[in-house]
Amino acid sequence: MRRTILNLEESKIREVANAGLGRSDVLAFWFGESDEVTPDFIRQAAIDSLQRGETFYAHNLGLPELRESIAQAMTQKHTAPEGLEPIQAQRIAVTAGGVNALMLAVQALVDAGDEVVAVTPVWPNLTAHAVIMGAKLRTVALTAQRHKSAAGNAGAWTLDLPKLLSQITAHTKLLIVNAPNNPTGWTLSREEQSAILQHCRTTGTWILADEVYENLYYEPTHNDCAPSFLDLAAPEDRLVVVHSFSKSYLMTGWRLGWLVMPQSMELAMGKLIEFNTSCASVFTQRAGLVALERREEVTPRLVQHLKACRDTLVPALQLLPGVQVASPKGGMYAFFQLPGHTDSLETAKRLVSEAGLGLAPGSAFAPESSAWLRWCFASKDLARLTDGVGRLERWLKIQSQT
Amino acid sequence: MRRTILNLEESKIREVANAGLGRSDVLAFWFGESDEVTPDFIRQAAIDSLQRGETFYAHNLGLPELRESIAQAMTQKHTAPEGLEPIQAQRIAVTAGGVNALMLAVQALVDAGDEVVAVTPVWPNLTAHAVIMGAKLRTVALTAQRHKSAAGNAGAWTLDLPKLLSQITAHTKLLIVNAPNNPTGWTLSREEQSAILQHCRTTGTWILADEVYENLYYEPTHNDCAPSFLDLAAPEDRLVVVHSFSKSYLMTGWRLGWLVMPQSMELAMGKLIEFNTSCASVFTQRAGLVALERREEVTPRLVQHLKACRDTLVPALQLLPGVQVASPKGGMYAFFQLPGHTDSLETAKRLVSEAGLGLAPGSAFAPESSAWLRWCFASKDLARLTDGVGRLERWLKIQSQT
Repeated sequence: MRRTILNLEESKIREVANAGLGRSDVLAFWFGESDEVTPDFIRQAAIDSLQRGETFYAHNLGLPELRESIAQAMTQKHTAPEGLEPIQAQRIAVTAGGVNALMLAVQALVDAGDEVVAVTPVWPNLTAHAVIMGAKLRTVALTAQRHKSAAGNAGAWTLDLPKLLSQITAHTKLLIVNAPNNPTGWTLSREEQSAILQHCRTTGTWILADEVYENLYYEPTHNDCAPSFLDLAAPEDRLVVVHSFSKSYLMTGWRLGWLVMPQSMELAMGKLIEFNTSCASVFTQRAGLVALERREEVTPRLVQHLKACRDTLVPALQLLPGVQVASPKGGMYAFFQLPGHTDSLETAKRLVSEAGLGLAPGSAFAPESSAWLRWCFASKDLARLTDGVGRLERWLKIQSQT
Repeated sequence: MRRTILNLEESKIREVANAGLGRSDVLAFWFGESDEVTPDFIRQAAIDSLQRGETFYAHNLGLPELRESIAQAMTQKHTAPEGLEPIQAQRIAVTAGGVNALMLAVQALVDAGDEVVAVTPVWPNLTAHAVIMGAKLRTVALTAQRHKSAAGNAGAWTLDLPKLLSQITAHTKLLIVNAPNNPTGWTLSREEQSAILQHCRTTGTWILADEVYENLYYEPTHNDCAPSFLDLAAPEDRLVVVHSFSKSYLMTGWRLGWLVMPQSMELAMGKLIEFNTSCASVFTQRAGLVALERREEVTPRLVQHLKACRDTLVPALQLLPGVQVASPKGGMYAFFQLPGHTDSLETAKRLVSEAGLGLAPGSAFAPESSAWLRWCFASKDLARLTDGVGRLERWLKIQSQT
């Protein structure tokens, strides 16, 4: 087997979750997934398709009507207000989930030995693809604010933009960035996106932007979503934007996502999908189609609920002695440090076994967040969050007494 | 974009199919897919799962009960008669189709610059994965019999075993072989498999065996399937065998397959699945589980029907003047040459437009089969096959008159 694959880090989140296997008394907030089932009318669309007998191969790039529907939705979000060119269906590829879209993009862009830069902390899958393809990966770390400042609240993570730009040179094939960010909640501003895009145009660097959390954004904006590179980019910019049905439509387990690419990439992407998965199943795509058509019935309610989750969890965490945590503008995670507990993997395992509380260790996302913990607040029942904070508080009290 | 990806050959089969787009009068036999819908009780299993709300992330390697069920089925087929060790569930990984299993195996095994040997003609996807990963690909061609001989019928393809073995050296990281073979119908004998396995043990070469057509085998055998490397190999041999629900259970569009690997590969494969697709959707896996449980209701009937298809098509083709075609022992394709028509891509396009007959060009599979045509005989209605032969016959007659 390849040394590169053997050396790929195993998920530390799963390592913690495994420590809680078979324990029904653990309140689990470790995975990036809501505990709500997919809305019934979305499931019904797949059921109807199966009953119609849609069980055959489909187009590599997705059903034409789904590509069209995605293109319209992306156009509405990202180009209508500024009067940019509409995003054409030919720029859309339907994939087997967001992570598959990331893998396809990296396969299209990165040769072995190429230099790739990623902004961290970040969901480990974002950096794994480049490593699998044999690239040289460099990371640029966000910085956690120690104190309340103009740049953000204590516990918030911010980008040192000049540092990032200095790391992207003509040798950099690809920049990978995820904002709103998993796990930190950090979000790129319009100005930062513009500076990055301009810089990458001069260096010839591709941008791979994971924007799967764009709808889960809690600041008031003209388009109800986080700033996107699509708000600025020209159709032929070296930009691939990755999206997923998972988060905005409660469809994690369906494995359905998409990417927006320059139209010149369409042929190559079709070939890569053929060789990776051939296509997404038609009945799954039918569900995606209905999710988009009826998105006003799903996403606004979900975002409102997630905001309530955030505003239940974060203030409660902030009341705990010594805990620094900023309220994230986007995403579905609270990211925080516990005073005196610097090994997050050990802490997370102890929280499972000693407090019945399941969190993800910050070391899963980057060395610089190895003292942090991630709490996914996508919980149908707000009381679960309060209960979880209670468990944490009791555990911290015991620690301070021993 | 990567030069490697731009240079990947576009599917010539799709090129022909595109020539027939929107024409309902074309009898299409170009894709490797039956025209039968998935049996209703398999579809119902997915529907029940969706109605139960199984819409969340699942284990990377597949539902434990599906891995166990696959392991038992593989054990029953491949180890019971010879008394080999049972195939454990830990050796099974559930994938998003057979092609995805191939991609995962190549990602696990092949570094950029590694040498990979493939036996051709073969489904183009089998050689694309190594190219995507930056490997150096060499091919070893089967040979078509010109005349009836001890080695096979005229039109049958055979392996020059010494030639193949001479091409596999200590520098060869991976051998890729698909038998029963798409498109030729060629099947490895037990003796050939044994010789290849012994040789690869000495060179340290991995074998990636695509055995997705093993059940579609028309010779009498003790286990109702084609010879498999699993009949011979030890659990820790450098062997990955790829399977799919597509062909044996009429589930092409579901994108569900699996691979059998050495148990030592389990951890790495779990990571790779996480980074490629995360998991197969649970409702799709539930359908696979029922397909396996009730396989006696699906596969024997399907195989019997495909045998009738083969025995309708091949003798009719053999009656056409100058056509050489052997009856394949396995698979679902007739592979043949038309006298005087050496450019199969051009011939296939002309057959679409001039005869309303959709076949796959042999050039899609290898240069050595560029004069051949592939006919998928998986047709629910036998009369479609006879109708197709009639169209070919009339077209040939017009050609001979001009």
